[in-house]
Amino acid sequence: MPNNPVLNHHISSQFNEELQDVHTKFMTMGGLVEQQVANAIHALLDTDATMAIDVQFQDNTVNRMETEIDEALTLILARRHPAAIDLRMVIAMSKANTDLERIGDEAAKIARIAQSLCEEGGSPRGYMETRHIGNQVRVMIHDALDAFARLDVDQALRVLLADADIDREYQSATRTLMTYMIEDPRHITRVMNVLWVLRSLERIGDHARNISEQVIYMVKGLDVRHTSVEEIEQKVQR
Amino acid sequence: MPNNPVLNHHISSQFNEELQDVHTKFMTMGGLVEQQVANAIHALLDTDATMAIDVQFQDNTVNRMETEIDEALTLILARRHPAAIDLRMVIAMSKANTDLERIGDEAAKIARIAQSLCEEGGSPRGYMETRHIGNQVRVMIHDALDAFARLDVDQALRVLLADADIDREYQSATRTLMTYMIEDPRHITRVMNVLWVLRSLERIGDHARNISEQVIYMVKGLDVRHTSVEEIEQKVQR
Repeated sequence: MPNNPVLNHHISSQFNEELQDVHTKFMTMGGLVEQQVANAIHALLDTDATMAIDVQFQDNTVNRMETEIDEALTLILARRHPAAIDLRMVIAMSKANTDLERIGDEAAKIARIAQSLCEEGGSPRGYMETRHIGNQVRVMIHDALDAFARLDVDQALRVLLADADIDREYQSATRTLMTYMIEDPRHITRVMNVLWVLRSLERIGDHARNISEQVIYMVKGLDVRHTSVEEIEQKVQR
Repeated sequence: MPNNPVLNHHISSQFNEELQDVHTKFMTMGGLVEQQVANAIHALLDTDATMAIDVQFQDNTVNRMETEIDEALTLILARRHPAAIDLRMVIAMSKANTDLERIGDEAAKIARIAQSLCEEGGSPRGYMETRHIGNQVRVMIHDALDAFARLDVDQALRVLLADADIDREYQSATRTLMTYMIEDPRHITRVMNVLWVLRSLERIGDHARNISEQVIYMVKGLDVRHTSVEEIEQKVQR
């Protein structure tokens, strides 16, 4: 972890080690969750039922990691009494841990829908939108985790901007799919399933945004939740 | 807070006071959020546009309280180095704080839909289901907060059981609404709005469940997330 100064500055090498261990586990969980989202979208778009089942199964691993990370963080709080940026890192990891687990949940939901669409024989309506938004949220998760690993506030800001894009594209895709339903009511059930997938992707974007907000909290000590991107940019540059 | 032994047992009266203050604020926020959900459902079912706007406006208060509670909890961690049940209470409040804010978000979403349905002239399709599930989730929030205030594990368990009911009823209501859409595609847009409301209510139930899981963590030191209600009952009784 050469770029993260927080993880090496403690007098107690035991504390250094504990913080590094939980940080490593957090990043591993992040990588797994990112892969889960990629696999869930792949399973849907390429009607890969085996992969759809695998994603749902792997969600147990994500859940277990969430529990382990929270346990490790609680032990650090109880034994090491972290202060300043160490404390903020522990708190940020605790919050972002919940977001990662929720991203995992949404991936599992997408996989469940993918599985049932595989069985019914797919629905190409709305798949272009799904592919497009899906790719964007994957990049958002990746960038948010990268910002977390490198304490990179600028990168975190870019994720917040990307989330605003996703929200607009989600609204537009929803309108398109509603039009499909009205034009051809025979496919309502299938199109509804694609709508739920888009909703999940939009939620995943929100979670990536939350993780990025925690990066800014960790580095700058600023709570930027419920703040517009413009205001955040001003605050951060001060 | 006569029934909560955690809030009065500290040697430092300053620590007692800080923990009580944040606990009081947490319970106040809980009461506000419960009211927000009740008002959002009322605005929808009784086509009350003024109330729909008020709920969206009040969401700012909920957001501000979330920030203040997290600040207070961070100060307690930094200054008081809580241990054992005190530490678990701080962690549980930090997690449940996020859930309360998300419930507030869902209430605001319902209010936004209520407002647009008011303008379009309402949709009685699916309102019976909304009223029914809406009442149930309001009770769930109330009971979860009550369990939190009184450290009542049995009450928390009842909320977990109620959430399983909600999930079943949500599935059933969704199917009913899909049938409406297929039978009468002219009302697809309106029925979709009711579907989003039901989805929000189902999410609110999940958040009430999360808060109840934190009650069990606080009292018993057990992390019961990702565990079936049957398993939790066994663990708790040990």
